[in-house]
Amino acid sequence: MSAESDPDPMATVDPLVEPLLDGDRRALARSITLVESTRDDHRLRADAMLTQLLPHSGGAIRVGISGPPGVGKSTFIEALGIHLTAAGHRVAVLAVDPSSRRSGGSILGDKTRMEQLARDPAAFIRPSPAGMTLGGVARRTREAIVACEAAGFDVVLVETVGVGQSELAVADMVDLFVLLVSPGGGDELQGIKRGIMELADLVVVTKADGDLLPTARIAKADHKRALQLLRRPHVELEPTVVLVSSTSGEGIAEVWTQVSADFATLRDSGALDRLRARQRRAWFWSEVHEQLATRLARDPRVAAEVGRLEAAVDAGEISPTAAASRLLDAAS
Amino acid sequence: MSAESDPDPMATVDPLVEPLLDGDRRALARSITLVESTRDDHRLRADAMLTQLLPHSGGAIRVGISGPPGVGKSTFIEALGIHLTAAGHRVAVLAVDPSSRRSGGSILGDKTRMEQLARDPAAFIRPSPAGMTLGGVARRTREAIVACEAAGFDVVLVETVGVGQSELAVADMVDLFVLLVSPGGGDELQGIKRGIMELADLVVVTKADGDLLPTARIAKADHKRALQLLRRPHVELEPTVVLVSSTSGEGIAEVWTQVSADFATLRDSGALDRLRARQRRAWFWSEVHEQLATRLARDPRVAAEVGRLEAAVDAGEISPTAAASRLLDAAS
Repeated sequence: MSAESDPDPMATVDPLVEPLLDGDRRALARSITLVESTRDDHRLRADAMLTQLLPHSGGAIRVGISGPPGVGKSTFIEALGIHLTAAGHRVAVLAVDPSSRRSGGSILGDKTRMEQLARDPAAFIRPSPAGMTLGGVARRTREAIVACEAAGFDVVLVETVGVGQSELAVADMVDLFVLLVSPGGGDELQGIKRGIMELADLVVVTKADGDLLPTARIAKADHKRALQLLRRPHVELEPTVVLVSSTSGEGIAEVWTQVSADFATLRDSGALDRLRARQRRAWFWSEVHEQLATRLARDPRVAAEVGRLEAAVDAGEISPTAAASRLLDAAS
Repeated sequence: MSAESDPDPMATVDPLVEPLLDGDRRALARSITLVESTRDDHRLRADAMLTQLLPHSGGAIRVGISGPPGVGKSTFIEALGIHLTAAGHRVAVLAVDPSSRRSGGSILGDKTRMEQLARDPAAFIRPSPAGMTLGGVARRTREAIVACEAAGFDVVLVETVGVGQSELAVADMVDLFVLLVSPGGGDELQGIKRGIMELADLVVVTKADGDLLPTARIAKADHKRALQLLRRPHVELEPTVVLVSSTSGEGIAEVWTQVSADFATLRDSGALDRLRARQRRAWFWSEVHEQLATRLARDPRVAAEVGRLEAAVDAGEISPTAAASRLLDAAS
């Protein structure tokens, strides 16, 4: 990406904005690269660009998709994505995976993920950026959603891995959350944390074909019962469980019918506007905290105290927590 | 817990310190409750208490244990814990699980977890606190490790769930990291992210008995090969793979022999001191960031700007990221 620096980025329209609004995929890809950058001048430019894109955003159904490793997430997303583009939708797939801090990606198979969907001109797939904290990945994903919507994508699928904080971060940026589970009853229920189950508007039992079909049916009943006992993410919606075979495509249409119906319910009741306003506030505050940390690191009063306090921490003379209090006392 | 407030907590020895140093488990439990509290007076008292406990800490082997849901973590930790207390060790088990933000714990089985170990007088088991962010859970766990060591526990096992940020947080507070995997070859390797595999000093293949034994042997070979290709957490150590049957106990002794040998290597080479000093610094900085956010929320200049900026964010007039920059400009 070239820098294309500008004396006052807020005052002029970024050159990426016009092609992006025209649906140019290269401009979209470059705008996401820009929001992923940590360089100060890029950040200023990204802030200005996003403020310009914001009025053109908000038009997509935003769906979070998660599930434990091995559940068949990529296969499911590919099948769903192809179903949607065939029906005339434009689909963006973004990934949130902060676990690959040291290197990137899973051990096997990343190159061959979603091969067919990746070649689909109505689809845009963007992998998770490497080397970022969850906060960084979440910021970049929120901003990428804005860019994808401004570029005319009307479905944004946000994929996340495993069981943990990423799901909570993704639930804070999407309208609806789909949890994938394997056929396998009790064990599965035990492994998936209650906190994650309570994020789900829709539970999809994958691999519901062949020998696994009877087990999948039991898993569906088990999860239906479990969902009855849990809090719901949206009081307006009844969480549902759908059986899916990503290989045969069975159940994929049903998933989307349910997601669209749920989305319409949220939109027509006014709940969607309230949800998205709440999410923008949460985004604002998480940005405040991220930027605060960056600024502290540059404070000269902090620099003067840091060495002394780090030495005391190293020597075990003071608890790191108490040392942190003293450092902040010096800065304020 | 009673408040027992004190005009200057730093100047006097906390009443919990003496019984805790004598190994009193009730005092240990209360001290951890104190570090979990978010009340200001409790926090001041906790800081003072921890600074008093610090010189008595550092004496344990600190081991992180993780693995995907369903791998048999609780069963493994119980078997390892019982093996260790039988050999004369005092074992503390702490859990890091920030995923249960909305409610707590997994759906099934939490009550019956590690029943036998929980009754063992030489063991101390403390579940993950509910309703905390990962940052909060990590802080509390680091402080709980100090308290457990001061109370004479010479093995601290820090358990974490799933695949994601928690593992990275735990790796930053332990000496060695054990990753549990199920027998199941390729699929398992695909599901476990490279970033998590690179944290592991020791990979344990669980359920290596009965019908699964041949599969477990293949998984062992697969993981050995995979580890060859990855970066190591400690250059001094060769990552190893051990087969374990938690039900028969087969392999448990071998796991501990390996962990002790690895620990001795780190200690004798001086790597352990360097590692722990680095971890104390990381702890200090994560505390700085947590406390910074708390202080900002109380800044009156911030309060004056917040309403206006939140309204602009709500109305979609400004990107949340740009609004955050403006808020911090007002505070500084």
